[in-house]
Amino acid sequence: MTVVTFGEILLRLASPGYTRLLQNSSFDATFCGGEANVAVSLAEFGVESKFVSRVPNGPIGQGAINSLRYFGVQTSEIVRGGDRLGLFYLEKGASQRPSKVIYDRAYSSFANSVLSDFDWKEIFKDAEWFHFTGISPALGVNINDICLEACKNAKELGITISCDLNYRSNLWSPSDAKKSMEKLMEYVDVCIANEEDAENVFGIKAADSDVNMGEINNSSYLEVAKELHDRFNFKYVAITLRTSITANDNNWAGMLFGSADQTSNFSNSYNVHIVDRVGAGDSFGAGLIYGFINDMPLQEIIDFAAASSCLKHSIEGDFNRVTVEEVRNLVNGNRTGRVSR
Amino acid sequence: MTVVTFGEILLRLASPGYTRLLQNSSFDATFCGGEANVAVSLAEFGVESKFVSRVPNGPIGQGAINSLRYFGVQTSEIVRGGDRLGLFYLEKGASQRPSKVIYDRAYSSFANSVLSDFDWKEIFKDAEWFHFTGISPALGVNINDICLEACKNAKELGITISCDLNYRSNLWSPSDAKKSMEKLMEYVDVCIANEEDAENVFGIKAADSDVNMGEINNSSYLEVAKELHDRFNFKYVAITLRTSITANDNNWAGMLFGSADQTSNFSNSYNVHIVDRVGAGDSFGAGLIYGFINDMPLQEIIDFAAASSCLKHSIEGDFNRVTVEEVRNLVNGNRTGRVSR
Amino acid sequence: MTVVTFGEILLRLASPGYTRLLQNSSFDATFCGGEANVAVSLAEFGVESKFVSRVPNGPIGQGAINSLRYFGVQTSEIVRGGDRLGLFYLEKGASQRPSKVIYDRAYSSFANSVLSDFDWKEIFKDAEWFHFTGISPALGVNINDICLEACKNAKELGITISCDLNYRSNLWSPSDAKKSMEKLMEYVDVCIANEEDAENVFGIKAADSDVNMGEINNSSYLEVAKELHDRFNFKYVAITLRTSITANDNNWAGMLFGSADQTSNFSNSYNVHIVDRVGAGDSFGAGLIYGFINDMPLQEIIDFAAASSCLKHSIEGDFNRVTVEEVRNLVNGNRTGRVSR
Amino acid sequence: MTVVTFGEILLRLASPGYTRLLQNSSFDATFCGGEANVAVSLAEFGVESKFVSRVPNGPIGQGAINSLRYFGVQTSEIVRGGDRLGLFYLEKGASQRPSKVIYDRAYSSFANSVLSDFDWKEIFKDAEWFHFTGISPALGVNINDICLEACKNAKELGITISCDLNYRSNLWSPSDAKKSMEKLMEYVDVCIANEEDAENVFGIKAADSDVNMGEINNSSYLEVAKELHDRFNFKYVAITLRTSITANDNNWAGMLFGSADQTSNFSNSYNVHIVDRVGAGDSFGAGLIYGFINDMPLQEIIDFAAASSCLKHSIEGDFNRVTVEEVRNLVNGNRTGRVSR
Amino acid sequence: MTVVTFGEILLRLASPGYTRLLQNSSFDATFCGGEANVAVSLAEFGVESKFVSRVPNGPIGQGAINSLRYFGVQTSEIVRGGDRLGLFYLEKGASQRPSKVIYDRAYSSFANSVLSDFDWKEIFKDAEWFHFTGISPALGVNINDICLEACKNAKELGITISCDLNYRSNLWSPSDAKKSMEKLMEYVDVCIANEEDAENVFGIKAADSDVNMGEINNSSYLEVAKELHDRFNFKYVAITLRTSITANDNNWAGMLFGSADQTSNFSNSYNVHIVDRVGAGDSFGAGLIYGFINDMPLQEIIDFAAASSCLKHSIEGDFNRVTVEEVRNLVNGNRTGRVSR
Amino acid sequence: MTVVTFGEILLRLASPGYTRLLQNSSFDATFCGGEANVAVSLAEFGVESKFVSRVPNGPIGQGAINSLRYFGVQTSEIVRGGDRLGLFYLEKGASQRPSKVIYDRAYSSFANSVLSDFDWKEIFKDAEWFHFTGISPALGVNINDICLEACKNAKELGITISCDLNYRSNLWSPSDAKKSMEKLMEYVDVCIANEEDAENVFGIKAADSDVNMGEINNSSYLEVAKELHDRFNFKYVAITLRTSITANDNNWAGMLFGSADQTSNFSNSYNVHIVDRVGAGDSFGAGLIYGFINDMPLQEIIDFAAASSCLKHSIEGDFNRVTVEEVRNLVNGNRTGRVSR
Repeated sequence: MTVVTFGEILLRLASPGYTRLLQNSSFDATFCGGEANVAVSLAEFGVESKFVSRVPNGPIGQGAINSLRYFGVQTSEIVRGGDRLGLFYLEKGASQRPSKVIYDRAYSSFANSVLSDFDWKEIFKDAEWFHFTGISPALGVNINDICLEACKNAKELGITISCDLNYRSNLWSPSDAKKSMEKLMEYVDVCIANEEDAENVFGIKAADSDVNMGEINNSSYLEVAKELHDRFNFKYVAITLRTSITANDNNWAGMLFGSADQTSNFSNSYNVHIVDRVGAGDSFGAGLIYGFINDMPLQEIIDFAAASSCLKHSIEGDFNRVTVEEVRNLVNGNRTGRVSR
Repeated sequence: MTVVTFGEILLRLASPGYTRLLQNSSFDATFCGGEANVAVSLAEFGVESKFVSRVPNGPIGQGAINSLRYFGVQTSEIVRGGDRLGLFYLEKGASQRPSKVIYDRAYSSFANSVLSDFDWKEIFKDAEWFHFTGISPALGVNINDICLEACKNAKELGITISCDLNYRSNLWSPSDAKKSMEKLMEYVDVCIANEEDAENVFGIKAADSDVNMGEINNSSYLEVAKELHDRFNFKYVAITLRTSITANDNNWAGMLFGSADQTSNFSNSYNVHIVDRVGAGDSFGAGLIYGFINDMPLQEIIDFAAASSCLKHSIEGDFNRVTVEEVRNLVNGNRTGRVSR
Repeated sequence: MTVVTFGEILLRLASPGYTRLLQNSSFDATFCGGEANVAVSLAEFGVESKFVSRVPNGPIGQGAINSLRYFGVQTSEIVRGGDRLGLFYLEKGASQRPSKVIYDRAYSSFANSVLSDFDWKEIFKDAEWFHFTGISPALGVNINDICLEACKNAKELGITISCDLNYRSNLWSPSDAKKSMEKLMEYVDVCIANEEDAENVFGIKAADSDVNMGEINNSSYLEVAKELHDRFNFKYVAITLRTSITANDNNWAGMLFGSADQTSNFSNSYNVHIVDRVGAGDSFGAGLIYGFINDMPLQEIIDFAAASSCLKHSIEGDFNRVTVEEVRNLVNGNRTGRVSR
Repeated sequence: MTVVTFGEILLRLASPGYTRLLQNSSFDATFCGGEANVAVSLAEFGVESKFVSRVPNGPIGQGAINSLRYFGVQTSEIVRGGDRLGLFYLEKGASQRPSKVIYDRAYSSFANSVLSDFDWKEIFKDAEWFHFTGISPALGVNINDICLEACKNAKELGITISCDLNYRSNLWSPSDAKKSMEKLMEYVDVCIANEEDAENVFGIKAADSDVNMGEINNSSYLEVAKELHDRFNFKYVAITLRTSITANDNNWAGMLFGSADQTSNFSNSYNVHIVDRVGAGDSFGAGLIYGFINDMPLQEIIDFAAASSCLKHSIEGDFNRVTVEEVRNLVNGNRTGRVSR
Repeated sequence: MTVVTFGEILLRLASPGYTRLLQNSSFDATFCGGEANVAVSLAEFGVESKFVSRVPNGPIGQGAINSLRYFGVQTSEIVRGGDRLGLFYLEKGASQRPSKVIYDRAYSSFANSVLSDFDWKEIFKDAEWFHFTGISPALGVNINDICLEACKNAKELGITISCDLNYRSNLWSPSDAKKSMEKLMEYVDVCIANEEDAENVFGIKAADSDVNMGEINNSSYLEVAKELHDRFNFKYVAITLRTSITANDNNWAGMLFGSADQTSNFSNSYNVHIVDRVGAGDSFGAGLIYGFINDMPLQEIIDFAAASSCLKHSIEGDFNRVTVEEVRNLVNGNRTGRVSR
Repeated sequence: MTVVTFGEILLRLASPGYTRLLQNSSFDATFCGGEANVAVSLAEFGVESKFVSRVPNGPIGQGAINSLRYFGVQTSEIVRGGDRLGLFYLEKGASQRPSKVIYDRAYSSFANSVLSDFDWKEIFKDAEWFHFTGISPALGVNINDICLEACKNAKELGITISCDLNYRSNLWSPSDAKKSMEKLMEYVDVCIANEEDAENVFGIKAADSDVNMGEINNSSYLEVAKELHDRFNFKYVAITLRTSITANDNNWAGMLFGSADQTSNFSNSYNVHIVDRVGAGDSFGAGLIYGFINDMPLQEIIDFAAASSCLKHSIEGDFNRVTVEEVRNLVNGNRTGRVSR
């Protein structure tokens, strides 16, 4: 039984260490993408993970595929064609200086995909779970339609569907997002969001919270989850709760709302010292999916998801290179980072 | 009196050393472009060099401008706007393995320029020379029209015009190139080409030469120059003569044909051991322009141009970081690379 | 209208990361200098910034000039001559281990400058502000005389003069500093100092503060400013207030005293996690000058200067690579370093 | 139909560039091994390639597996267990200084394998070819027995067997090699050797050749092949012919002897400028296997194998990262390394 | 008068920065080992420091010796022989992710040493102190016997003996450790331990402390020291007290118990921001030995040892590259890391 | 019995790879110096090698000493004092571009040495050989006097004296060199020179040779040696014969003239592909000294010296990191750089 993830895989060009973009004459080059990050994290957990996308022919597209095969992700359903691999420039923030992301992903092989590129019946053979995010429909109406097509097929086949809202202000406006995402939400069983997404996409604001000022009121997020459920009838709503102190130090926790008993389960809160925070939300999603497909209780799921994404903050690159055993150790309380030898 | 160069400035993402693309997780990132290379080389020679282009707002475009200012190139006429900086991936060849260039330059700020972006009257104030290349018209009809507009203005103002044919098979077909370039050639005083361009663009083939097999018949290039002159009435035709042995070792020379006496001047031939050959043709062009604006005799011009571009093969990156004194030393016969201390 | 800065530009040889000097076999090599840092920061803010200095002929001196041109600093008044570029070795501290600076700047091209090297009438054409620091007179009586000459010319031309006391115990004694600086202070309009300078140079000690123990009493610095003003009749006195916790963590704030209303304006205090703190004081000076030449109110000036120098702590190298927009974002309260995408 | 390769995968710790071992404080770390190299090269050619081995649990063993998955090699039959991954230190030679290999591979997970670790019936399902080398039996009698077992199973299933003699003087003596290899040769269809192996293992010396002095008499190798065939009844014998000039420059060619018509086919000879020559022999083997399973004529096979291994000399690391298309281009005569753009 | 240290010197292969093992294709390679670290730190303090060990012939063993000579450690008594240098892989932890050490040290030249390899009478000529650790007897009964032989010889010659318990769970079980160490303790004058060793080796647990949860009750360690003294009649017992907050932040202090007055001296506690914590305990031991051989009072000794090992946390690599002057500066209260220039 | 070498040890700041000075923002930093290179090479050969010099206090001077101790060079007679370590910038040439050395060594600790800094009676205890070069007297009259003092002491003690002429045009004029060196030559037993030194210092020109054009007439150097011997009564004259083809490719040989039989012994000539040629002459000197103190016949000495310095061209940095065994292998004819494994 496989988990199918659909989305764009991108080249990430990061200035080394804490240097500003182009301060030195090199970039750290890795592959990533909100959905590819989920696929890799699941593969690292030992899950049969299949990633579906479109990349150009030639060494850049092949490099993207190889970077997934490295972790054991199944890549046989990745289509080749189009002109270029989308990319973005990343500058890591420090102290009071925020991280910076500059997208250069328009006209990519993925963004130019068409409906006929993907045969969802074939793709979903043996699948038990389908995951996508709000980044994809933001890339254009063609991708939005492909997402809808995928959701319809998944629903027909009885496959559970999760979606991470992942609002990106550089890709679309809140009103465009709302219009597009509302239709997709009809098919979604598990809705994943960060502390800003619900407000940005659906206008559901957490009371007493000001994300830019580093103020998060956890209890108000229970209300956000309830309202999301009320509006779209999700089975589960999971929200990450990041309190930003500086670009180096954040607090991190997660919440999982179950529609069955209308209550929320909160994870521990971690004081994280950040190595690389990009992809943390995606690793949270992967942790959730791992918990669900292994039939964990809700509290155990949110603990696993929060711990796995806590660890992501200590990993270079977007991909969450941690094993189930490592996540379990943290859930079990070993959070002081002592050396084992 | 300034030399004005017009063209695209690109980000070059090169895999380090002799590694294949994406073999390791970093790229060497430098700025370049056939015309920018000429502008920088001239600035290194102490010439007032002004570069005209269009780059996006933000740190990537600014980095491109800064990389030119570093050498003292005048950048005040570079327009800002559009969506992205064009880029390409470069893999350096070795032995029997050829270098590889993968363009990702469509939809760039420069390629999307329009006629009204550039005020040529203003740009050409104080100018004595205008240089452009065949890469620009290959980027689209809008750029082709801008080139025409620039040429017309330059001609009116009595500015000498040089053009490097610079045929790029990844950008357009020979027939498209021919159609476009023929019109532009009407305005050109100094035509620069490599050992393949004349054939690719205008179908003028050098007899007894097979470039891919590493066979160059120098004398036949005299005929090529004559035919180019006969067809377009150029004042001067300069051709680089590269004999490829392997990706590491080439022979390199240059030829300059003068219409006045209908004869060709040949430079020495250099056995070059290649550090980085990209930009060698551009450094040849810069050497020529330097010679012309300093009123050197034709033999001295071709010697200077061939020596400066010979040295380029020993420099990392596209830009030819050599001084007039260094070129003169080589022209004067110090070609054995002894240490001076 | 340009801001003219005069001083030495140095080569900084820093051991990589947190390694000790010569622990590995490479140095990070960048250019810097208290006054060059100011010139670059102003250029990054879009100010017409002219740097005046003396560097040796050849690639090392040229490299220094190029590093300034990169940012758009005007370098046409930099004189060439002398034997060597001054340099220093830098080892970055961590935790309880302090940073270490080893000067090797004696006999430099700049330190051997003579009065006739600089034509201040020409240099100050179009200038509205002149900035220098206490490092220059510490390099020898010849430089001291050049500073005096520059100040006299500036005063005659009605140019505002700022001076950062910048006491360096490795260059001269407090008594020598006092003797020299007292004469120069007659010309200075804006006096800039850190939390130790006033005591070291003029014996004006802040009560209840022990800088080495990390104790700073802000209110006592108001008295320091007043006493500086009383003694030298400065129009403005600005002081940086650094509380050292460890080599990695400092608190940072600034104070600006105006003689008109005899009161001090304090900035926010920032808890900075240090990437590279060298040059922070210089970036504070540049922020002040930017505020003054843009006619900001005093509170806005000190907020801008403190924020811009807060950001400097997050930047590798001496130069403060931040834009006005980035400083404004921090002044406006975005201090939690969230990613924008 | 898959090609199965059996052998050890090792960690290669190479001093960077041309530095001597431990001259600087880092190693380039890649995975390799005579047989793994063949498996990767075949996967790069698009062949279904399955690698069989034994690696330790934990991140080092997993890293080895990941490095194979990256290229699409099937790793499901790699067994986990034992204490350590074998490794070797590599120092790249230059000019008259030879490369140096220091093995640290005793007691490895692979060397401690036992017969029951591998279920050859299962492994050979869908296989058409089995490849191993003389390195494996050199690691101990247990591995020798496993090789025998594999050969017997392959023979029973009608699978073609190739063996690269790959004599390693640091692992065993010629007499031990002879004793062990003679038994294994009974099962082998295609024997692969370099210019020294036949002499080292079976005492069959090429006349008029002195490998250490850089003298190779091609025609005498035809006799070597014949004698090998006469003694072991191989269907095909392939020999690589390396003429060493310096550590940087070698001549390289290959020969393929067919028992059917008792004649040898020689490839072109290439003057290679070496980037990394380790693994060249293995890439020759992979080229041969690719030719045989695609039913090429013998001349085409040896041309393909020689060209693919010629290209290997230009690739960093043991793995031959070249595509069929790239090999074909070289076979077709593009050997001058010109840039394509 | 020399200090003799006996133990294994190892190659440490660390993944760069905070990357996971094999995430990138290089290792930082340095030499280290609990006892070698002590020898180097003492040499940095200006002590005549002799290291005794066994390494293989060839460049890897020679590199280990060279790395000690670099600091002035006497290496004339290091024996050459055996097959390999022991090594380990190190992954530096961050935030909630712990550091990871993977040993590959079995069958090393040192582990295969025999009694006759070392002539202790000769080695101890001019010695005043002998130091070893619990790592050595954990490597096998042969090394255990060599330690015993060394202790007997040292005792006979009136040389003071110190031992760091250094329990390593990856090398032996608590019960094996107890059995072996109890015999060796008879000879030991100064026992050094970390906050876990006494419990792991001798079952002496500190009350109210949970090391994995980051809880340390200092006063209870006075009881641990007393009990150690009561059982083995040590003259002095020194214990390091590490409170782990995250992998980046620890509190660090030391305690020294003197049997003469049965009281404990505690050092300051330092909040350390970790650069590299491996070897901190060894640098504590070196600090102690330096204090003892310079006849410092006990409080001064523990202050010196705690400060020197506090600084170790800020140094890359195992070796504590700090001078006596730097340690004294910290002891004297300069702990805020201000730049001196 | 030790070999004593006297001279300056310098910091060498080399731009990485083939980049131009300051093209990127780092320098490779190593220690070197004509005489230190000899001392290290001898230590690598197992000779008791003592280096005498003067370096500043602090980490830079200590780093220089450590770099020598690493190889086992005795450093106890290195004096500490003065202000700075001399340094130079190095840019490696390629193809037709020559290497570039920019000295910054004036006012160094060594250059400011005085006679009383060195107690030659003490230094020469146990010495059998004294080596110095023409670089030292070029640094000033004080160093010239120290060299004279050292020579007189050595002569009195019956120690053999060798001197490498090592003319440096950036340090003094031919006439100054002649005046100074003529006096020193009275004491010298073994004179070492390169193909230019005899002409530059003593006006003895090799007929039919033009070093800058890459033309060397070996036989004429026999005459040079004879004339040197006639003028100064050297026991032996050794000359290196470098034919420069490009900065990458040189031919290299050596000649040793013995006064006893008035004949010259020539070594093989090597075609070297250069990794780093700086220090090649010094490694030749070290090879000679090794041969003499081991009482080799003259032909064997010159073969050893030429082979050891041939290998130097393949080693990064000034120091010749090769063993006697490696030199012997090359002398014995293994010059094709085959891998041994």
